[in-house]
Amino acid sequence: MRKTRLDTDRIRAARRLIDPMFLDTPQYRCEALEPELGCAVSIKLETANPVRSFKARGTEVVASRLAAHGQPAVVCASAGNLGQALAWSGRDRGLDVTVVASRHATAAKLDRVRALGARLELVDGDHELARDRAADIARRDGVRLLEDSLDLETCEGAATIGLELVAATPAFDTVLIALGGGALATGVGHVLKELAPEVEVICVQPLGAPAMTRSWRERRVVTTDSADTIADGVAGRCPIPAVLDDLLLVADDAVLVREESIVAGLRLLLDHAGLVAEPSAALGIAAVLEDRDRFAGRHVATIVCGGNVDPAAYRRWVGAPRAGAA
Amino acid sequence: MRKTRLDTDRIRAARRLIDPMFLDTPQYRCEALEPELGCAVSIKLETANPVRSFKARGTEVVASRLAAHGQPAVVCASAGNLGQALAWSGRDRGLDVTVVASRHATAAKLDRVRALGARLELVDGDHELARDRAADIARRDGVRLLEDSLDLETCEGAATIGLELVAATPAFDTVLIALGGGALATGVGHVLKELAPEVEVICVQPLGAPAMTRSWRERRVVTTDSADTIADGVAGRCPIPAVLDDLLLVADDAVLVREESIVAGLRLLLDHAGLVAEPSAALGIAAVLEDRDRFAGRHVATIVCGGNVDPAAYRRWVGAPRAGAA
Repeated sequence: MRKTRLDTDRIRAARRLIDPMFLDTPQYRCEALEPELGCAVSIKLETANPVRSFKARGTEVVASRLAAHGQPAVVCASAGNLGQALAWSGRDRGLDVTVVASRHATAAKLDRVRALGARLELVDGDHELARDRAADIARRDGVRLLEDSLDLETCEGAATIGLELVAATPAFDTVLIALGGGALATGVGHVLKELAPEVEVICVQPLGAPAMTRSWRERRVVTTDSADTIADGVAGRCPIPAVLDDLLLVADDAVLVREESIVAGLRLLLDHAGLVAEPSAALGIAAVLEDRDRFAGRHVATIVCGGNVDPAAYRRWVGAPRAGAA
Repeated sequence: MRKTRLDTDRIRAARRLIDPMFLDTPQYRCEALEPELGCAVSIKLETANPVRSFKARGTEVVASRLAAHGQPAVVCASAGNLGQALAWSGRDRGLDVTVVASRHATAAKLDRVRALGARLELVDGDHELARDRAADIARRDGVRLLEDSLDLETCEGAATIGLELVAATPAFDTVLIALGGGALATGVGHVLKELAPEVEVICVQPLGAPAMTRSWRERRVVTTDSADTIADGVAGRCPIPAVLDDLLLVADDAVLVREESIVAGLRLLLDHAGLVAEPSAALGIAAVLEDRDRFAGRHVATIVCGGNVDPAAYRRWVGAPRAGAA
């Protein structure tokens, strides 16, 4: 295949920089989900760690390298999970971490960024404005700007999930990956295409935030004027060209799902798997719910990539007990 | 110390019989819980696996040995988690598994026992009646009776959690362990007392099902006429003498907690850790909530030992959003 920006040996090297607490996460067949979904389902669980998302795999790589090179500070824009992870990874290494986020970001995520000792700057706008502001701060202060999905450390960190997925037996037919900026999809996708090319890589994005999926379909960057989804972790509007180029090389398909399917996915994960997922982490389940025929009889793996939710919003989504539920 | 029935080398050998999927479970500091609890808290998570509890560690040992010796069948009494785990461990090894449970057991647990292909026999009574019935079946059919907590495989399997706990750095001061029949407490307690004797071992049981705790306090078997708690996994009435003897050697304390504290623990685990716990798995958090002064400034580890709940009951317990919650 044509080459992505990633390199599997570099990904293996990156893995050695990550606190083992974030590695070798639970990966198991979840049969209790299968009657509802009509296919075999394996879960890759990225929420059982101190920052409740996969993002620390990348921030561990970044923070390790910054500390090794004596760089004292880093700034990033974040919907919350990257910022929380960077705050965690930076804290013990003595890094000065600044996180820029939308004022409308999930409060629980912003609370954790603050609690972990990072400086939090809020902008009156969406994630794209936060990206601009983070770039301004980096220029002004002369510090490292960490750009999610563009910077290879974020993709390589996420890609270590791929190394763990391909080590599984029995193997699965399809992996469903939440698509936002693209670090997770290009990272995991790269490893799968290189080490397990028979596995289908399907990216899943909300209909309300379809920029990267539209870009993948049209093979050119398509931006959107707005993003409207509960899946805050993937609600970007402006795909990064270099990341799209990589995605074009590794994704077999990119699908869009409705908000009600995401909510149904959250509920299935709670009721049948006992897992608290954030909306972005239910995208894979939502994709199966919307197209059961496509997946019938297959074995899908879905990465439950984050679990940071505001308690009140989460209760609204998962709602009252279903009729007929015990 | 005087010797328990357990042996650390045998526990290490048992570990090699367990599917790695159940080993090296997530173990991490959960700072988001700490402001509410007033102490450092580490989580040992036993719910992210195909049976959503720690019980498979023991049933893997049992089923491996039965299969190796050509024994075709096994019967156990269970509140649901042991039965589900035995069904899982027995299935791939071709064992004929019978599970005896109370008709009033958690429906989700019984559903999973059936779905995993075990024969399920229900009794009109509590767990103690199920134990009698399982013994009858074993005698009648001449098959192996697996007795939770009495049979060393169940304790040795649980004890492998202890091996993982003591490998942690930084170490914790106290481990809080759900106390029911005693397999988890004596297993983990044995390993801690042998390999990390400085760690305090505190067992936690519901006030509504206090038989083992009372027995530990009086240093003789005390039975109760009834058990009334939502913590179905630890709702026994008749402690096993040999298990009590071991518990007397490894537990530094045994405390009883109120039902409302268990519910508060479930809610904290959901809202601050993003974890779905069953009531037995929230006993450790409940113990801290009831005695914050005792744990202030200490580092406690708590084993989130199971996550099998009926969806409707779980929603009742965790209820509506808290006032002031985001």
